[in-house]
Amino acid sequence: MKTLTKIKLLCEPTSEAWLQQALHNLDTILLDHSHCERKAAGVAVNLLFRYPSHTDLIYQLTAIAKEELEHFEQVNQWLQKKGIPLAPLQPSPYGATLKGAIRRHEPHRLLDSLLVSALIEARSHERLGLLAENCPDDELAKFYRGLMASEARHYGIYWVLAQKYCDQEQIEPRLQELAQLESDILSNLYPEPRIHS
Amino acid sequence: MKTLTKIKLLCEPTSEAWLQQALHNLDTILLDHSHCERKAAGVAVNLLFRYPSHTDLIYQLTAIAKEELEHFEQVNQWLQKKGIPLAPLQPSPYGATLKGAIRRHEPHRLLDSLLVSALIEARSHERLGLLAENCPDDELAKFYRGLMASEARHYGIYWVLAQKYCDQEQIEPRLQELAQLESDILSNLYPEPRIHS
Ligand SMILES: [Fe+2]
Ligand SMILES: [Fe+2]
Ligand SMILES: [Fe+2]
Ligand SMILES: [Fe+2]
Repeated sequence: MKTLTKIKLLCEPTSEAWLQQALHNLDTILLDHSHCERKAAGVAVNLLFRYPSHTDLIYQLTAIAKEELEHFEQVNQWLQKKGIPLAPLQPSPYGATLKGAIRRHEPHRLLDSLLVSALIEARSHERLGLLAENCPDDELAKFYRGLMASEARHYGIYWVLAQKYCDQEQIEPRLQELAQLESDILSNLYPEPRIHS
Repeated sequence: MKTLTKIKLLCEPTSEAWLQQALHNLDTILLDHSHCERKAAGVAVNLLFRYPSHTDLIYQLTAIAKEELEHFEQVNQWLQKKGIPLAPLQPSPYGATLKGAIRRHEPHRLLDSLLVSALIEARSHERLGLLAENCPDDELAKFYRGLMASEARHYGIYWVLAQKYCDQEQIEPRLQELAQLESDILSNLYPEPRIHS
């Protein structure tokens, strides 16, 4: 079921090149992961402000925002344990490019926002799964496995919210476009190791 | 101890006029309260983005953001129970005026942000306390009493963060100015019932 949804959302699987880059730079990946969790929380909170009367969206995204903050906290505990100080990190173009593809006017804006979040969550799910399978540190691998399950739930929720609030006929074609863009961005491996390089 | 800190932060206590306005409009107050909790979460999350290397601030404000989202959820459950739909609400000038007083450049920006949040939390604490004492619905009163304790912790945390990150000599005089502004805004009761009218 999970896998079905995953296949449906992502156009292309992650390359072996990303996995090797990540495994050789696990500390940087962990720091970038902290930024990703904060951004995921920030995106959910922004949607809470933008759609104050969308009751289901509010309920679901409040729960997601809380969980992302929980993940942020957990990743930060890992950083502390490994003696890696919190610090800004130049992001890869992934997030900004996808955000740039969100159309500015409603109802497109809501559709695009939900689909972009669904795609990012689906990709995070896939990549945390790769880290869980391949990371040499067992405890860290276990941690990734736990998060991976949450990110699967998250992309499911964004997807269901799109079904609920958006025009059915527009969802599928727009998903194809955004999913293609998402895979295209990742087809050029960003030189710095990132969760979404 | 709590009371001491409260007296220290707020210049003037809430007027009887506000309490009467609130008690006559408990449904609107509840809806506005939902917006307040979301805004409190939003402010904490924004600071997480603005100060990515301030480790203690990150730890403490992640915890606050999570709690504010929890409060947001709880207030929304009350709204649902009372059959009040989620809806936007024209805000009183309170938040925007205080935000406008935050200076744009560091290190002032951090100091002002922390003090403004401390003041808003202190005022929320005071007013939720008044609602807890005077609200005719016992269960709602109990709910307000629970939240009130959190808001007291929150203003304590913002205050302690100011002590940690800001120039000691600037904190006290700037607090005086901002606390005076905060009380001045509230001295004109906003015609619409709000948590911060
Ligand atoms: Fe997450
Ligand atoms: Fe997520
Ligand atoms: Fe709160
Ligand atoms: Fe608070």
